[in-house]
Amino acid sequence: MTKKEEKADYNEKPRQELVKLGQNVIKEINQQKNPKIDLPVRGLSNVIYDKDSKTLTLGDKMAERFFFNVAHAKKFLQTIEVAAICKSLLDVKKHASLRDVFYMAKRTIPNTKINLVDEQKESDKAIEDLELITNFSREHLHVNANKMGSVAGKVIIEDMGDTIDWSRLGSGGWSIPSNVEDITFKKVDAEYVIYMEKAAVWERLHEDRFWAKHNCIIMSSQGQTTRGIRRLLQRLSTEHKLPIYVLADCDVWGWYIYSVIKYGSISLAHMAEEMAIPSVKFLGVTCDDIEKYDLKKHFIKLTDQDTSRMKQMQQYEWFVKNKDWQRQFKLMKEFGAKVEIQALSSRGITFISERYLPEKIKGKMWID
Amino acid sequence: MTKKEEKADYNEKPRQELVKLGQNVIKEINQQKNPKIDLPVRGLSNVIYDKDSKTLTLGDKMAERFFFNVAHAKKFLQTIEVAAICKSLLDVKKHASLRDVFYMAKRTIPNTKINLVDEQKESDKAIEDLELITNFSREHLHVNANKMGSVAGKVIIEDMGDTIDWSRLGSGGWSIPSNVEDITFKKVDAEYVIYMEKAAVWERLHEDRFWAKHNCIIMSSQGQTTRGIRRLLQRLSTEHKLPIYVLADCDVWGWYIYSVIKYGSISLAHMAEEMAIPSVKFLGVTCDDIEKYDLKKHFIKLTDQDTSRMKQMQQYEWFVKNKDWQRQFKLMKEFGAKVEIQALSSRGITFISERYLPEKIKGKMWID
Repeated sequence: MTKKEEKADYNEKPRQELVKLGQNVIKEINQQKNPKIDLPVRGLSNVIYDKDSKTLTLGDKMAERFFFNVAHAKKFLQTIEVAAICKSLLDVKKHASLRDVFYMAKRTIPNTKINLVDEQKESDKAIEDLELITNFSREHLHVNANKMGSVAGKVIIEDMGDTIDWSRLGSGGWSIPSNVEDITFKKVDAEYVIYMEKAAVWERLHEDRFWAKHNCIIMSSQGQTTRGIRRLLQRLSTEHKLPIYVLADCDVWGWYIYSVIKYGSISLAHMAEEMAIPSVKFLGVTCDDIEKYDLKKHFIKLTDQDTSRMKQMQQYEWFVKNKDWQRQFKLMKEFGAKVEIQALSSRGITFISERYLPEKIKGKMWID
Repeated sequence: MTKKEEKADYNEKPRQELVKLGQNVIKEINQQKNPKIDLPVRGLSNVIYDKDSKTLTLGDKMAERFFFNVAHAKKFLQTIEVAAICKSLLDVKKHASLRDVFYMAKRTIPNTKINLVDEQKESDKAIEDLELITNFSREHLHVNANKMGSVAGKVIIEDMGDTIDWSRLGSGGWSIPSNVEDITFKKVDAEYVIYMEKAAVWERLHEDRFWAKHNCIIMSSQGQTTRGIRRLLQRLSTEHKLPIYVLADCDVWGWYIYSVIKYGSISLAHMAEEMAIPSVKFLGVTCDDIEKYDLKKHFIKLTDQDTSRMKQMQQYEWFVKNKDWQRQFKLMKEFGAKVEIQALSSRGITFISERYLPEKIKGKMWID
């Protein structure tokens, strides 16, 4: 198959799955059966931590959704309607946001006063169901997540007919799209990727040309790790075997960013295969760094929220048996405090680029 | 002066202002005077709406800050310390974030138990004071705001030695840096700029190649209009005389985005000259659009917060005498409802690119 054919196929396969769904329903109607949709149960009761793949994944529990069932009828209709919207998007090769899909689905059912959807979470759920039914992510169904984040490094990609060199984009970098399924890596000259939660830290490393000096890729968002970013990291990890390091605050929220990238999240357990990156390492900031780099004077007292979130996380299956992480939780509890990554700036504006990161990477001082 | 000299000058002038501040203080110490800093009063009591320039600006009220004054001493120290930090950044030609500056300033005053700064808002205030004292924006003092947003269009810029073509950056676009003072426009082929508050709308217009078909620039953030974006818009407006159109939700928060870009904000009144863009127009969504494009079925009821914010805004001096805006406020009150821009998607996924925007621009259906 040529690259071009592969891409066409890429558009065609999810479309075929949606068509199949519709045809099954029509078949059942013609056979005068009660039309139904089969789909796996979602939610905690069917989310399992797979020790082999080291990711969160869905179990085997299945559910049936019937049209002639008062409790199912509306969800059944919503699923079919949103499937039709996705098919129409694939037909015209356009993408929509979750909010767009909500408005496209929102209308009154003829001869009733009932809206097909009243709130966005209803169409969102339908899209997640379609991911399960078709086995394609919502990006493949042409529904995009939020756009956020920047990237720089020695990488050349092709996207929408443009050749883009991530090392020649000035102070801004390339703006990461919400959907990275269609980009092609032409040349990847980097040895690893550092992903950071804060855009300000990215600008620090970029101004210091960290990626050029250390032959790596720097990537950041601002606040949330979008699906576009997670998929981009995952593609660099699987297609180019690049190690991925996460750089975040020394607090449970920063640590959870790492956890989601590495193991997947509970709400997207069905997407683990495409999303989770089991090889990801946490590069910092750790509780050990606080001692080593003299950051105790920048302690911020833990809030009740921090403490209760820590207790929860400490008990997650993938953390329970991890001695290194249990040690981190214990140290943080002893400190009764957290530290922000920018506290490193108190040691000098380029301390993070010139000493902290090179030292940590050279000494393999990460947590797995 | 050559371009290169101009740039060096650009770094040197703010530095000189900081040196001057330090020299004045030393002079007063040598003369055994009580060292003082003169600076304009900020806050509502000294913010005026300048009818000629049509921007918010600071009045003439001045204040003096003395070292030997119990109420002033700490602020005096903070101002001097942050000035020293900015000077050191300019010396090494590096930039820091507001959070970095806080950590760089945070230390215990020798032989006391008093921290120079305890919270970031103290160093933030000191930076704002320095903007007033030096007459240079904090970007010129090498302190950056948040980085956010994307841009695409027929523009070629030069930045950090790279030549960047905003029309050849795939689906992502150029990621807007926090500081756009150093970029140079090499070629601007566009006729106007559309700025939108939502990244999802930007991706819609970008996928539809709206900027190529209509010869314009599309720019967006996600959630907040950063200073980097406002300065980029302002530079395109003043240096290239491009009209700027704002595209936001039909609610008071969307309208306020427009108001800040056009008139400036109360907290940054001292920066109006560099920030405000009096020629900006509001392209949509307006209350008239709701009728015209049949969006009433997507009404979202106004919350108490919406209503009280509307009352406030309606009385702002720059809105009070504006009949068009008073009419919008009145219509929204009658509706008792607001509408999101994505509601346009209910008319079809490309409705915004193929009908709504071309029609509005052709018919000059904007509000000034």
